[in-house]
Amino acid sequence: MNRFLDLADFSRDEIVDLLALAKRLEQHPEPRALAGKILGLLFFNPSLRTLSSFQVGMMRLGGSSFVITPGQGTWQLETRLGAVMNGAAAEHVREGLPVLASYADALGIRAFADGKNLAHDLAETSFNAMAAVVDKPLINMESATNHPCQALADWKTMDDLGIPQRGKFVLSWVNHPRITPLAVPCATVHMAAMRGMDVTVLRPEGYALPAQIMDKARAAAEASGGSLRETTDRAEALEGAQVIYAKEWGSTAHYGDATADAALRAGLADWSVCNQWFERTAPDCRLMHCLPVRRNVAVADEVLDGPRSIVQREAYNRLPAQMAVLHRLLA
Amino acid sequence: MNRFLDLADFSRDEIVDLLALAKRLEQHPEPRALAGKILGLLFFNPSLRTLSSFQVGMMRLGGSSFVITPGQGTWQLETRLGAVMNGAAAEHVREGLPVLASYADALGIRAFADGKNLAHDLAETSFNAMAAVVDKPLINMESATNHPCQALADWKTMDDLGIPQRGKFVLSWVNHPRITPLAVPCATVHMAAMRGMDVTVLRPEGYALPAQIMDKARAAAEASGGSLRETTDRAEALEGAQVIYAKEWGSTAHYGDATADAALRAGLADWSVCNQWFERTAPDCRLMHCLPVRRNVAVADEVLDGPRSIVQREAYNRLPAQMAVLHRLLA
Amino acid sequence: MNRFLDLADFSRDEIVDLLALAKRLEQHPEPRALAGKILGLLFFNPSLRTLSSFQVGMMRLGGSSFVITPGQGTWQLETRLGAVMNGAAAEHVREGLPVLASYADALGIRAFADGKNLAHDLAETSFNAMAAVVDKPLINMESATNHPCQALADWKTMDDLGIPQRGKFVLSWVNHPRITPLAVPCATVHMAAMRGMDVTVLRPEGYALPAQIMDKARAAAEASGGSLRETTDRAEALEGAQVIYAKEWGSTAHYGDATADAALRAGLADWSVCNQWFERTAPDCRLMHCLPVRRNVAVADEVLDGPRSIVQREAYNRLPAQMAVLHRLLA
Repeated sequence: MNRFLDLADFSRDEIVDLLALAKRLEQHPEPRALAGKILGLLFFNPSLRTLSSFQVGMMRLGGSSFVITPGQGTWQLETRLGAVMNGAAAEHVREGLPVLASYADALGIRAFADGKNLAHDLAETSFNAMAAVVDKPLINMESATNHPCQALADWKTMDDLGIPQRGKFVLSWVNHPRITPLAVPCATVHMAAMRGMDVTVLRPEGYALPAQIMDKARAAAEASGGSLRETTDRAEALEGAQVIYAKEWGSTAHYGDATADAALRAGLADWSVCNQWFERTAPDCRLMHCLPVRRNVAVADEVLDGPRSIVQREAYNRLPAQMAVLHRLLA
Repeated sequence: MNRFLDLADFSRDEIVDLLALAKRLEQHPEPRALAGKILGLLFFNPSLRTLSSFQVGMMRLGGSSFVITPGQGTWQLETRLGAVMNGAAAEHVREGLPVLASYADALGIRAFADGKNLAHDLAETSFNAMAAVVDKPLINMESATNHPCQALADWKTMDDLGIPQRGKFVLSWVNHPRITPLAVPCATVHMAAMRGMDVTVLRPEGYALPAQIMDKARAAAEASGGSLRETTDRAEALEGAQVIYAKEWGSTAHYGDATADAALRAGLADWSVCNQWFERTAPDCRLMHCLPVRRNVAVADEVLDGPRSIVQREAYNRLPAQMAVLHRLLA
Repeated sequence: MNRFLDLADFSRDEIVDLLALAKRLEQHPEPRALAGKILGLLFFNPSLRTLSSFQVGMMRLGGSSFVITPGQGTWQLETRLGAVMNGAAAEHVREGLPVLASYADALGIRAFADGKNLAHDLAETSFNAMAAVVDKPLINMESATNHPCQALADWKTMDDLGIPQRGKFVLSWVNHPRITPLAVPCATVHMAAMRGMDVTVLRPEGYALPAQIMDKARAAAEASGGSLRETTDRAEALEGAQVIYAKEWGSTAHYGDATADAALRAGLADWSVCNQWFERTAPDCRLMHCLPVRRNVAVADEVLDGPRSIVQREAYNRLPAQMAVLHRLLA
């Protein structure tokens, strides 16, 4: 394994093996496994869990890491090929990334979507331009339309808690004050499909996930014995659900149009998960969310502070899941 | 010992033991004592000494650390319970802090006062809301009205230099271009009282320390055989002083009112320690300050660059003092 | 060796020895050489290579480091002696630097030129004010008019690639949207002269390097058997060149005058290295640049992406070169 960029690059068995390694490292720590290894962490965007769990993961395996944040202590970086660089960016990723790769044993990159052109973001144009010039093991720490580390941690969380492989998994759009990226919903729908679950994407009109993402997830579902469908009917979707995975994302019908998105969103304040959402679910239905979560906008306090919420376990599982990835890439 | 939040949580003997450990670690380094241990450092506010000395302390004991700075590379964090989070803060401390705690073996938190409501700040409302959701060893790296790490380092500094236990200790308000928090004066007056010193708080009208702080320190003084009083009379206060501890803080009479504070402060430019302040002190009277210090506003160059200043030793002592705390919490 | 501030502080033989150590550490890693040693890194200005390579260098030698960035997580620092500190800076370097030095085993400082007064910058007034209060090993990570770490890496790069000691080295001014500092050109001209090369400084009118820098480099050239001259004639300068070292810098004729510099610069857009520049050079002439480089402003894509460019190797060599410096200072 030389890159961890997308769950879809791996077979279901390979992911199951990776999760077994995560479990093993939890139970039998290997504090010298990555002695002398160095991970470079490049963050174009803010982070709490990813920033801390990757550093801690290296420490717990005996390695170390360094953090680079363009625009904050480091030059702004240009990603466009052929750019005449007379603007704010002082350095091109074609220089900066190979340099960082030459110092480190592996790199992780976080680079959110531009959010202007859906085809550009679905093609992972920026991330791929960077990946193309890195000749060391590489980790996607969240790109325009993917977040495989979150997906891996979420899969582990469901395994840990015995949520059935064929359980009903509802990925539901929830409200947020602003447009947020597609990375987590795209990664989540694929993960749940690949795990073999019966996946429902519940979202209002205008917020359908891109066909390319749905098709890819549907193929994964078929290969794993699961299913995938989408609906705008909340009552129907939640019926019998074993997981409600709440997530915010921007309108795909009006991609890159903040005004149109805001107009659509204005009528959607009730897309906020509260106890009532669980009235017709399975009795032990869980609430998942990748965090950060807007309390009382996306999910109510009563759910986040109640027994259904497993968001802390998801966040904690970032650590062992990523330690397994690092172990595979570097040990 | 599971938390280091306030000197007042410990008996005088316990603090004396902690300082003995600090001394022992200075003389007999233990470069593997915290091998494999990880400290998470959460800074809501700027820092130089705390930021560097905690990282170095972990390194010198064989452990490691990571730094999280909300609003700078990490999401802004909300502390208010029940908030409808449609503003700038993307994440609530009720999620963020348990996540960080789940990755680390201990956490340190720096969160300055809001500076709007004195009762709120004296109750340590924000810090306590965070402390309540952390189930790992926890260190107060400066809260609204406390700074126990600074206090511990200052106590050690006076011990190192043989400043008598019953010496006259004058905590004097000094000038500053803006309002600064109450944390250090509150921690300092308690520390000196607990050490058993004859403590005088010297401050202009409008800058009395809160009664709750003075009462708490007075009880500590009585238990340790020291004393505590306050005055606006500089000549009387400095007479025979063995320590002048210079510190800036905001008006408590006009707490949260920048305009009133500035008006009051306009007439107080001579509250700036210069050589003349030492004319009637003990001959070997020392100048203490927690740093950062505004040269020629709070303290004159002639004092900071002269032999009375022990500010460098105070700052250096942050390291062994905090190493003792870390050792107690984690070894 | 206790300080690494300027190549000119060392004899040519000492630098050659240091480069031999760099080579040795590349071939025979010493992963425990600096076990227990701590480097403090103080960055007043942005960085990618220096920030990451110094951290990695310590890790690869078994030591560790911490980073302090005034104004970003840390107080702004004042450097002026005698300042009445009622402005933005909360702390003076006379306090801050000795404190950091007391925690660490060595310090590195990056502090760019003020860019207002050439004599002040040539005298290294700010850097020297800081160096004067640091009593630990100290590294210049780029000051107003020097960048010895870059120079050392560049020298190593030419050795690695067999560029002859007496080869023709052309330091050429290139275009940039804004004024940039003199540090790299000053360090580069001295390095190439000290290596014994035939050095030509090619620059437009108004951009001559300061006489003080040229005189110092000329003395180094004479001692090493090299030569130094300057010209505005590009064709003549490039004839037979074995290295074109492209670098941006501000007008010295109008130092500190952004308007005059911009007016002069407006006519200089063709000072951008493209393939045509190599028509009369030696056949294997190389393109060097310290990075970050403005693509298609300072150097064209066709050169940076072609076989002449050795900028990646220069950047990589920061690591072994600085590891040699750290080894000398701390092992």
